[in-house]
Amino acid sequence: MIKIYAIGKVKQQFIKEGINEFLKRLTKYAKVEYIETQSLSQDKLKGFTIGLDERGEQLTSVKFSNLIKEKTLNYKQINFIIGDAFSLPKNIKYDYKLSLSKLTMPTNIARLVFIEQLYRAFTIIKNEPYHKD
Amino acid sequence: MIKIYAIGKVKQQFIKEGINEFLKRLTKYAKVEYIETQSLSQDKLKGFTIGLDERGEQLTSVKFSNLIKEKTLNYKQINFIIGDAFSLPKNIKYDYKLSLSKLTMPTNIARLVFIEQLYRAFTIIKNEPYHKD
Repeated sequence: MIKIYAIGKVKQQFIKEGINEFLKRLTKYAKVEYIETQSLSQDKLKGFTIGLDERGEQLTSVKFSNLIKEKTLNYKQINFIIGDAFSLPKNIKYDYKLSLSKLTMPTNIARLVFIEQLYRAFTIIKNEPYHKD
Repeated sequence: MIKIYAIGKVKQQFIKEGINEFLKRLTKYAKVEYIETQSLSQDKLKGFTIGLDERGEQLTSVKFSNLIKEKTLNYKQINFIIGDAFSLPKNIKYDYKLSLSKLTMPTNIARLVFIEQLYRAFTIIKNEPYHKD
């Protein structure tokens, strides 16, 4: 299963709607939990943990889907951590750091971009058409 | 002035709301027009023209704000062109190609990410705080 831990609450309604739309689409492909939390402790994070970080590695969507495919085969749980405005929680051990862009994105838009990519990754893995609307 | 030409209509309501939110904030800084259109002709594009393209150059937010600053000083009009699902209009001459990410983003999310960056660029240029909510 995939757990997405996002630090801090999203306030904008339009972002919440976007996130919910992609979470709904993801139910077809995988057990994905999206959890907004104020803090996070290492003992919650079994399996493989990926932090989203501007200075992390940038992947194409195809390479990201390969990463998802490989890690879901090898681990029962994959955790994605999305920090608040400027940083990832420092008390967590990250197995990998992924960058969505060189641009500094606000955490709310980063969440939307990330969840869309996760949906896109599964359509690539399953060789299914991407739903645009 | 800044003209953003986006090829094709955004259908998702949550994306429309996000775009409108940032367009509203931008009115404080610059004359920005967001135009959704089915096609585009070169004679509409006076000034400096930037196409958004996955294979273009990636900038940090600070470097992007420098680009905006320089071009708004030197040109009366800057055009940004955001293509539809997979490509930019081929009948247009681009002075520069900008990539938001290595990831393939749907055009609707790319529009939102771009407009947020444009707002962010002006807060950087004017040394003003970034409004989070």
